[in-house]
This record gives sequence, structure tokens and C-alpha cells, in this order.
Amino acid sequence: MPRVCVDVMLKPEILDPQGQAVLGALGRLGYDGVGSVRQGKHFEIDVEDADADEAVERVRAMAGTLLANPVIEDFSVHVAT
Amino acid sequence: MPRVCVDVMLKPEILDPQGQAVLGALGRLGYDGVGSVRQGKHFEIDVEDADADEAVERVRAMAGTLLANPVIEDFSVHVAT
Repeated sequence: MPRVCVDVMLKPEILDPQGQAVLGALGRLGYDGVGSVRQGKHFEIDVEDADADEAVERVRAMAGTLLANPVIEDFSVHVAT
Repeated sequence: MPRVCVDVMLKPEILDPQGQAVLGALGRLGYDGVGSVRQGKHFEIDVEDADADEAVERVRAMAGTLLANPVIEDFSVHVAT
């Protein structure tokens, strides 16, 4: 049963307040030298009765329909390693 | 400036109600053949003044301190491709 991962991120031109909050917290904790932080969602989906290529295609359709909002988010799909 | 990704997921033994809600919604939308869905967080962090190996080490420390709760979450770190 292939496991397929989807990463959903806000588009680069959309403000990411969660990422900025993390960036500020890292600075306060002493982690310097961080240029930017963006936060998004990560899904791990087990697809039944499919090979890896078919599973990626099916998950790509799910991502475009339900997992991401294509107006403000980009997503990428890959097989889990 | 290397970009490092962190995936933070609930440990397998921890109930994931967000993932279960997505699994239910996929079924209602007609996407059959999905065995399980787990939802987590995905961070993309730009690290300044470091090569890829050093950037991964620095981000691994950030993830263990701030990005993940090691009691209930696992994380993985990799360089963005």
C-alpha cells in the first residue's frame, strides 16, 4: 500500500503569520541566522490497491479538491521514502 | 542559503482527529480506496551562513526545542530539493 505525502504551503505572496511567529520565537530562543520560516500542512495518505504512480495521481486529485485551497495555497505530492 | 524542511507528525499511537476528519471527507467526496490519513505540520526554513549539512543540524535542534513536542510528535528534517 503506497504512502503518499502532500505538502500544502501558502503561496509565497500570501502573508504567513504562523511562520513569522515561529521566526520570532526562534530568535528569542537564541537561534540566529534564520532568514525566513514558512509553515504549512503535511499529509500522509495510504492508498489501497494502487501502484506508486497511480497513488500519486489519485492523491494529486484529492489535494486539488480538498486538501489545499488553490486560491491561496500551493501543494506538492511525493511518495514517502 | 539552504532551505531545510521539517515534517512534524503525531506519533503513530496518538489519535489524529484532523486526519480522521479528512479521511471521512474524502470518502464523502467519492475518493475510495484510502486506507488512512495523518495530518501534521510542514516547515520550510531558510538558514543563513551555513552549508547544507550544518543547516540540517541547526534546524534539527530547532525542531527538537520548538517545532515539535517530543512527547507526542515525531519529526523529520531534510534539505528542500
